[in-house]
Amino acid sequence: MKQSQIFTKTQKENPKDEKSLNAILLQRAGFIYKEMAGVYSYLPMGLMVLNKISNIVREEMQNIGGQEVNMAILQPKALWQKTDRWDKGIGLEVMYKVKDEQMEVGLGPTHEEMLTDIIKNHIESFEDLPFSAFQIQTKFRKEARAKSGLLRGREFLMKDLYSFHASTEDFKDFYEKTKQAYLKVFEKCGLKAIITEASGGGFSKDYSHEFQIISPAGEDTIYYCDVPALSLSKGHFSQNEEIFDKKITKCPVCGRELQKSKSIEAGNIFSLGAKYSEPLGAFFTDKNGVKTPIIMGCYGLGISRLMGIIVEINNDKNGIIWPKSVAPFACHLLPILSGKQEQDKEILEKANKVYNDLQNKGIGVLYDDRNKKSAGEKFADADLIGIPLRIVVSQKTIEKGGIEIKERGSEKVEIVSEIKGLTPVK
Amino acid sequence: MKQSQIFTKTQKENPKDEKSLNAILLQRAGFIYKEMAGVYSYLPMGLMVLNKISNIVREEMQNIGGQEVNMAILQPKALWQKTDRWDKGIGLEVMYKVKDEQMEVGLGPTHEEMLTDIIKNHIESFEDLPFSAFQIQTKFRKEARAKSGLLRGREFLMKDLYSFHASTEDFKDFYEKTKQAYLKVFEKCGLKAIITEASGGGFSKDYSHEFQIISPAGEDTIYYCDVPALSLSKGHFSQNEEIFDKKITKCPVCGRELQKSKSIEAGNIFSLGAKYSEPLGAFFTDKNGVKTPIIMGCYGLGISRLMGIIVEINNDKNGIIWPKSVAPFACHLLPILSGKQEQDKEILEKANKVYNDLQNKGIGVLYDDRNKKSAGEKFADADLIGIPLRIVVSQKTIEKGGIEIKERGSEKVEIVSEIKGLTPVK
Repeated sequence: MKQSQIFTKTQKENPKDEKSLNAILLQRAGFIYKEMAGVYSYLPMGLMVLNKISNIVREEMQNIGGQEVNMAILQPKALWQKTDRWDKGIGLEVMYKVKDEQMEVGLGPTHEEMLTDIIKNHIESFEDLPFSAFQIQTKFRKEARAKSGLLRGREFLMKDLYSFHASTEDFKDFYEKTKQAYLKVFEKCGLKAIITEASGGGFSKDYSHEFQIISPAGEDTIYYCDVPALSLSKGHFSQNEEIFDKKITKCPVCGRELQKSKSIEAGNIFSLGAKYSEPLGAFFTDKNGVKTPIIMGCYGLGISRLMGIIVEINNDKNGIIWPKSVAPFACHLLPILSGKQEQDKEILEKANKVYNDLQNKGIGVLYDDRNKKSAGEKFADADLIGIPLRIVVSQKTIEKGGIEIKERGSEKVEIVSEIKGLTPVK
Repeated sequence: MKQSQIFTKTQKENPKDEKSLNAILLQRAGFIYKEMAGVYSYLPMGLMVLNKISNIVREEMQNIGGQEVNMAILQPKALWQKTDRWDKGIGLEVMYKVKDEQMEVGLGPTHEEMLTDIIKNHIESFEDLPFSAFQIQTKFRKEARAKSGLLRGREFLMKDLYSFHASTEDFKDFYEKTKQAYLKVFEKCGLKAIITEASGGGFSKDYSHEFQIISPAGEDTIYYCDVPALSLSKGHFSQNEEIFDKKITKCPVCGRELQKSKSIEAGNIFSLGAKYSEPLGAFFTDKNGVKTPIIMGCYGLGISRLMGIIVEINNDKNGIIWPKSVAPFACHLLPILSGKQEQDKEILEKANKVYNDLQNKGIGVLYDDRNKKSAGEKFADADLIGIPLRIVVSQKTIEKGGIEIKERGSEKVEIVSEIKGLTPVK
């Protein structure tokens, strides 16, 4: 895509009304547009990143058998009254409610009620279980303090998966699978997630976990053991401050001193038991012919929040440093003109050839064809936007026998005759 | 995908509270679930169809240069006050409004205000024009009479594209391109759209058109000339009843008698002139250095409505007949068991082989592995679900030397040794 044509413009100055790093960088680099506190629109490059994160999450959810659906945003009042959440708890505290002449409805902050109501028409016997479904969908929450950019929104994109089981044992098996699938998602997004015991759900603390990413931007505090193996596997110990007993100072597994840190909750998973299936009438007939409430689990992961987290973790003073897996383009091509007609013709011919070659291979490339911009402006924009590989074509690189490549976030530059090793990303 | 595992069950009986044909068939066949009047959730096969329609629309919008964005659903009150639509017109009549402690916002029924506000930061001079952006996004409308299934929803999926121009001439060129792109969308979806003059927009009736699909389920009435060339090109004459002068009885082009019909509005396009750019301050500097309001156009197309229209047009007494381009799967594989162990082993081996071969080629196949179901039940479900190609493996087809294929909607059956001619659909 040509940069002169893409619907985005970088800004040199920080937006006045933002203190959140992810919001500042994403707005300055032209990925998002702020509509109001906690509400952002996604410009083309922002939507590309969001779609890449969604695809990573979608693939892992499908790998554990999750079937994708898309449930309504408008929530029937009667359903939420059945679980006693319309006038209490989440329904009272965070759900926006709207009326028209015929009805009052909520804007979905979560979908336990709705999916449980749907599946009760689809599950009859133990033979229909286990079963899981997920969606990637816009959700809403009343937020008194939406000051953290994409980390905490009034409107946000979220993946929510729900699982349905004939027994607690079967739920437990699936819960472990989901944990591993979540770790794969974070790993693919270049993040280290710490599986942390938490208070959600309420069935048992053995089955309530958050995936926490260490960051000063986090609103949570965790106490954890930082043995190296921790980051991408089970870990020794990590608890959210909400449930942590401060008398504990050492890791119960290895005895090392526990660490305390601010962190961002990137996902949470927990058991629901029969909390929703009972009041909503989602029963199945077990092997003995007995009607039994379905055992459920719930698994959330913020897609737009993940985009914000990635930016909080991957940046330097010049801008964003996108991991390859979620970058809007694989490379950023910068022809640097000299002002001399003959030389510039050669530079542009060379750059056009590189552009066409990459496009023909299906490699995403942003081509900075803004010929009025100085080299300094182009380099600054490239750093701000943060595409993983910068490719420079200039008189100097041609004299040295090719094109210059540099990875964003690295200082090392290299002259090569052609670009190798890039493969198309879905 | 195996039918025993897919999240859907067919229903023999029509839902009690529906009169709309598309809603009845889509619910009975397990594509959608009704949450309340005008609000549906999409089960896996429904979401597959919706995604295929979205991809067709997306491709055509990108072909005319549209860049995809995703704007917020929550609409700032101040923006809509600038165009005087918060307390009047669409803002008063159809926009849901919600409050929290800090603000009052609307749920977007359309996005002229929001996009115009965004682009004014991106467009400075005539060199930044023309420009167009679109989104495929959930929208909301207060609907007093949401009785038509997916044809008229309180919550619905829509593509809206907006174009921005330096001159009316440039707008007119783009308008014609969009018309052709829309016709391609409908053609790909197997629909005949009649381009119909209408009253939307208000800049000029020459630049306000609806794409009408003839159907008794329609809420619109059109007067049109039905020369055969009409259906997929410009046509001689078609006007919405709203603007039609009933004194006209013959086609002004060819003199044939005009036809009158009920029809469904599948899309509309119209000029906006400077209606939004002026009050929202979206100006550009023209070639003479003069600040001038940007000329705009607006192009809507209902994605979920299109799914409803396709079902209204393509069905018979037994169920849906999906066009290949939007069908959830390319083929439906039905092993018909005989009850004799030796024979059934052969049938299932043969069916498994066909299933694996098709999957390896990337062909979408729904495999009816529900061995307890009778042949009659399997055939009835296949007709109801409406996948374009039915493949039967039974003792009879094996004796005849292969497998039986039959197109949904045709009576012709054929024995073949292997499936040919299917290609993966995005």
